[in-house]
Amino acid sequence: MVNEKSYALGVKRSAIRELFEYAKKRGEEIGAENVFDFSLGNPSVSAPKEVNAEICRLVNEMPSVVLHGYTSAQGDKTVRDTIARNLSARFGCEMDGDLLYMTCGAAASLTIALRALTVEEGDEFLVFAPYFPEYKVFVEGVGAKLTVLSPDENLQPNVEALKQALNPRVRGMIVNSPNNPSGVVYTPEVLAEMAEVLKGASEQFGAPIYWISDEPYRELVYDKATKVTFPMNVYENTLVCYSYSKALSLPGERIGYIAVSPKCKEASAVYAAVCGAGRQLGYVCAPALFQRVVAACDGLTGDLSVYQKNRDLLYDGLTKLGFTCVYPDGAFYLFVKSPEPSSKAFCEKAKGHELLIVAGDDFGAEGYARIAYCVDTARIERAMPAFEKLAKEYGL
Amino acid sequence: MVNEKSYALGVKRSAIRELFEYAKKRGEEIGAENVFDFSLGNPSVSAPKEVNAEICRLVNEMPSVVLHGYTSAQGDKTVRDTIARNLSARFGCEMDGDLLYMTCGAAASLTIALRALTVEEGDEFLVFAPYFPEYKVFVEGVGAKLTVLSPDENLQPNVEALKQALNPRVRGMIVNSPNNPSGVVYTPEVLAEMAEVLKGASEQFGAPIYWISDEPYRELVYDKATKVTFPMNVYENTLVCYSYSKALSLPGERIGYIAVSPKCKEASAVYAAVCGAGRQLGYVCAPALFQRVVAACDGLTGDLSVYQKNRDLLYDGLTKLGFTCVYPDGAFYLFVKSPEPSSKAFCEKAKGHELLIVAGDDFGAEGYARIAYCVDTARIERAMPAFEKLAKEYGL
Repeated sequence: MVNEKSYALGVKRSAIRELFEYAKKRGEEIGAENVFDFSLGNPSVSAPKEVNAEICRLVNEMPSVVLHGYTSAQGDKTVRDTIARNLSARFGCEMDGDLLYMTCGAAASLTIALRALTVEEGDEFLVFAPYFPEYKVFVEGVGAKLTVLSPDENLQPNVEALKQALNPRVRGMIVNSPNNPSGVVYTPEVLAEMAEVLKGASEQFGAPIYWISDEPYRELVYDKATKVTFPMNVYENTLVCYSYSKALSLPGERIGYIAVSPKCKEASAVYAAVCGAGRQLGYVCAPALFQRVVAACDGLTGDLSVYQKNRDLLYDGLTKLGFTCVYPDGAFYLFVKSPEPSSKAFCEKAKGHELLIVAGDDFGAEGYARIAYCVDTARIERAMPAFEKLAKEYGL
Repeated sequence: MVNEKSYALGVKRSAIRELFEYAKKRGEEIGAENVFDFSLGNPSVSAPKEVNAEICRLVNEMPSVVLHGYTSAQGDKTVRDTIARNLSARFGCEMDGDLLYMTCGAAASLTIALRALTVEEGDEFLVFAPYFPEYKVFVEGVGAKLTVLSPDENLQPNVEALKQALNPRVRGMIVNSPNNPSGVVYTPEVLAEMAEVLKGASEQFGAPIYWISDEPYRELVYDKATKVTFPMNVYENTLVCYSYSKALSLPGERIGYIAVSPKCKEASAVYAAVCGAGRQLGYVCAPALFQRVVAACDGLTGDLSVYQKNRDLLYDGLTKLGFTCVYPDGAFYLFVKSPEPSSKAFCEKAKGHELLIVAGDDFGAEGYARIAYCVDTARIERAMPAFEKLAKEYGL
């Protein structure tokens, strides 16, 4: 006698978590150094040293009842103003601290935004495959429906598919670039086209279709030529859902924000709905100490050169072995094509060589597998002979 | 074009928050020392020194990627085992770390538990007045209905009222003792009677009615004779929703837990539903650093003697002035009877003397007002002449 859907989600872990737990168990059997776990997007580089320094400074200098006390539900005012100012300076937008809402990380940002924007049961949100599978959990959790659209052959958004999917029940579009799981960064051109289409549809249907930008990987881009578009600059009705998990290597601390674009139609009403949705979901305020830490460290990152090195090693290595890979401009994932139709079968064969990679099926991309390269570089080096054996098994 | 209910909750702050914001504004006009703000339950004593010491120790000694990395969704295993062991030792139950789920504080504990236990839209949860008004937001947020029951004249649960309210749609009963807003601690006798009634009804209706114990004030009790009942010891189908906000003075850090009693019918299914509900609501894991901090500091409290002194000063002072008060055994709230039928009018008159107290209406107790005495003792002393003027205005 419990909630059926909650129960089902509780007993069945995500495929990623499942594999991660298997890796721990397998490591105990054959030694952790012999298991090549590429399952989880847990940053492998330390937080920048400024993070721990700021924690200690705050603890030593700020009165306990202020430091650890409630902040306003939307976040400490100074924190919000600092982050808004930084966004404005960096992206040339005019972000306002009073439209910024501090959250317990990206998942909270998304569930709150989705709740705020769902007008009725059965409303619809769109996303392009491949996509992070928890989106489905979050969207269905607020009583809405996730519609997954097919990308083009480079895993960029297919604007034609978007046009065909639009209808009056669509409340928003989740955009995740740099993308998990593909590592692809959507081009400025395709994003501009999408914006044009969404603008037209909003006018046609007489209600804004919101652009929900899930961008925890915003800073994780490795080539100078790669441009990450800041969505507020291409589309008016935008909510930026950010998390410091990846840039500052703080995934366990649960800290991020929702930034409602000042150009949103009735921005203050959208912001009010965000505040109310936060209350309904039990988010009283974002963790107070870390609100102040991220404000002080906003714009810093961990040592991204490690990820770049890993990417190059893995992409070059696997390509040389005969695998077809999507070149990852950002994030810390490599998307590799399965040499046989079933990527689940491919991942099972990889498992036979102690290579733990996630089948693309759960990401809405059946012919692929995801390799998370946020690991020690040594693990990639040690894994190469195993990838070689896997390639031979397929006669590559 | 946003969610109507979320929007309404976003534009209308809770009465408590409203008054708190007014206090800040009023303080700027006439000086903070001249405003007697008793609105918010924000602890006024520092966290025990062990908290900050443990934060610094962890930051200095633990590798960053482990300390700030994801924990399991249900919380770090060592943390859960430690807290479970402490609960078992302290209350003589047999708590199991694998039935303990770390949360982002009491509000998260409650929304997750309510979501997990709501089988169908329109299911019902019960609570005795007076009650914390956000319960209504949380219960309605998961699509259920909150039914408020009248207490007896001492603000203890009225078991007759409970009997009459039970029906097959009731999934659970929220129990909050020590109580916010009254400060009343429910007696062991009345809780035993309630347990008996709920057990009977569960059998009659063929489905467990869960006891959801919201107990952030568990440790805030001032007289040796006062016994706080640990609900798992009186009722089988119990979920303890705990927060470290009040005991450790960490309300802004959002850290607590749900403990599913091992005696629950199908405890592991209830726990699975809790895990799934957490996923649906966007709670990836509880803040990692503070999980470890509270495990190390579990059982400690801030300096409670300050609250006891405040209680005595306020209760004795107001009683002498002719006000009728409910004697508060615990928490840090004094519930005072309005000398006129409308407690809103009473609070407005108090405001005229710069006394900011919250009308009981929102707590489901119209003839009362709540005075939060988690403030500097000096504020209470300075406020006494204002209370005296207020008493005179009523001819007390």
